[in-house]
Amino acid sequence: MRVILTGAAGFLGSHLAERLLRDGHTVVGMDNLLTGARENVRLLQTYPAFQFVHHDVEDPWPDLGPVDAVLHFASPASPNPRSPLGYPNLPIRTMRANAWGTYHGLETARRYGARFLLASTSEVYGDPEVHPQPEDYWGHVNPVGERAVYDEAKRFAEAMTMAYHRKHGLDVRIVRIFNTYGPRMRMDDGRVIPNFIVQALRGEPLTIYGQGEQTRSFCYVDDLIEGIVRLFTLDAAPFPVNIGNPQEYTILALARLVNELTGNAGGLRFEPAMYTEGDPKRRRPDITRARNLLDWEPQVPLPAGLQRTIEDFRTRLARAAG
Amino acid sequence: MRVILTGAAGFLGSHLAERLLRDGHTVVGMDNLLTGARENVRLLQTYPAFQFVHHDVEDPWPDLGPVDAVLHFASPASPNPRSPLGYPNLPIRTMRANAWGTYHGLETARRYGARFLLASTSEVYGDPEVHPQPEDYWGHVNPVGERAVYDEAKRFAEAMTMAYHRKHGLDVRIVRIFNTYGPRMRMDDGRVIPNFIVQALRGEPLTIYGQGEQTRSFCYVDDLIEGIVRLFTLDAAPFPVNIGNPQEYTILALARLVNELTGNAGGLRFEPAMYTEGDPKRRRPDITRARNLLDWEPQVPLPAGLQRTIEDFRTRLARAAG
Repeated sequence: MRVILTGAAGFLGSHLAERLLRDGHTVVGMDNLLTGARENVRLLQTYPAFQFVHHDVEDPWPDLGPVDAVLHFASPASPNPRSPLGYPNLPIRTMRANAWGTYHGLETARRYGARFLLASTSEVYGDPEVHPQPEDYWGHVNPVGERAVYDEAKRFAEAMTMAYHRKHGLDVRIVRIFNTYGPRMRMDDGRVIPNFIVQALRGEPLTIYGQGEQTRSFCYVDDLIEGIVRLFTLDAAPFPVNIGNPQEYTILALARLVNELTGNAGGLRFEPAMYTEGDPKRRRPDITRARNLLDWEPQVPLPAGLQRTIEDFRTRLARAAG
Repeated sequence: MRVILTGAAGFLGSHLAERLLRDGHTVVGMDNLLTGARENVRLLQTYPAFQFVHHDVEDPWPDLGPVDAVLHFASPASPNPRSPLGYPNLPIRTMRANAWGTYHGLETARRYGARFLLASTSEVYGDPEVHPQPEDYWGHVNPVGERAVYDEAKRFAEAMTMAYHRKHGLDVRIVRIFNTYGPRMRMDDGRVIPNFIVQALRGEPLTIYGQGEQTRSFCYVDDLIEGIVRLFTLDAAPFPVNIGNPQEYTILALARLVNELTGNAGGLRFEPAMYTEGDPKRRRPDITRARNLLDWEPQVPLPAGLQRTIEDFRTRLARAAG
């Protein structure tokens, strides 16, 4: 199969590209390198069947020739308001990557009769009033709120994907991706796992807001990619499918685990609870559909996934330090 | 003031254009005449301060020179699945009119330091679980449902409007328009008032689904335009404002009123209740914010508004009959 994968230089995109290449596919990776990493492109370029196209998905796409599938993963995705690459600081580009990018991807898929897969997100559920969230929950998003630039853009992308399916009979897939972690994650992503690992590798105490009793669920990237590949290769699944890990950990348990795995003697530092924009509110996937449809569920336990992520962060920090 | 008004050939757009022209403003009316009417353009062209630009808001806009405001009203708006001009049959164009059109309008406003007003809709509330709907209700929309092409596109347009306000300090207004009726409404709009009036003027029985006990609220177009103009001219009101009529009528009472005002002896015909996609589910505006902020509330009672609408439909039907 010859596929176009947007966002190929990003965290999830690069893992998916590598998996598809190993499975024998030809991958045309499109990325503007705004939030993606050039080192991910260099890694992918070691595969002869990888072709890099430095292009912004917002702009009309060059004709890249016949393809069997388009997978749209390009978008700023970090909610960190303190990072210049977090979507709060790239609001218009985030909206355009998802609306314009999805449109160009769908038109490309339509031209070549290709399959289209949209990387959507648990953020379409917003601040959910239902736990865990099944796919038929319509979500709770403030259309004029600060986070709307991401949440509403992904909802728009889903609606447009379904419109091409209904209007033009396009073969489409929508994956709603929950919290994922693993190697190649941006260190300044602003979410709790990279924050903890970076603090631990520097020997600093891990910062916990409040008592650390709040819970989160985390999916290791290899598990996520396996679910996406199964959805992508399955016949006829036009509706959204949640992929994520439903197991919940408290922030306190996570912090202790990171300190244990890194051998960090810095301990913990408790700070007053505050609403941090970068920390998503509690979300937990209902993965019944993925279990039934794809015979999929997460396999990698948190300690094992964290161990591999810590190794990757350690290597990158050492390389950055020269 | 010199303003760009998109959708100027449409039902609401043409009324707003005329009002702004009468108030002494210069109006550049943009429309692609997809769902708008050429006769509305001809009427507006009788005003020397009106300029028509035949252009699709989805495409990059020509530079129309310095303007003080951009008002974005262009979009297919009829939910009628049986009309080729209903948005269910124009899903991609509807999404692009709202996303691409809003973007081009915002960029134009930004270039000239102009005010931007977005015509949003009660459809952002979807199938509401709160009655009546205040502006801080986040809505209940299915992102992958049939109606999402309109509802999610308007939510996206709101989010993008707020993003330009937050990121670029743009002076913005968002009006959420509830059910409106009046002269120049499309006869094949698919909603209950045009359906009833057309049936009544043909001497046919008015079709009621179920017992007619379900309620609707209807705002006369002059009331709506007055509210929009007040919001538009007010200083500093970046948040959405509902404009609509909170008074509810049963479908049965509405049907009897139409038969009475038209002198239709055709009576009523009851058919089994069914979900008609074109008939929006129950929505009723909470207009507290409009009352407090704009000192506005609807003035035209339903019988008076219906009378004027019936006269307009009668004239147009006679003209169409030659």
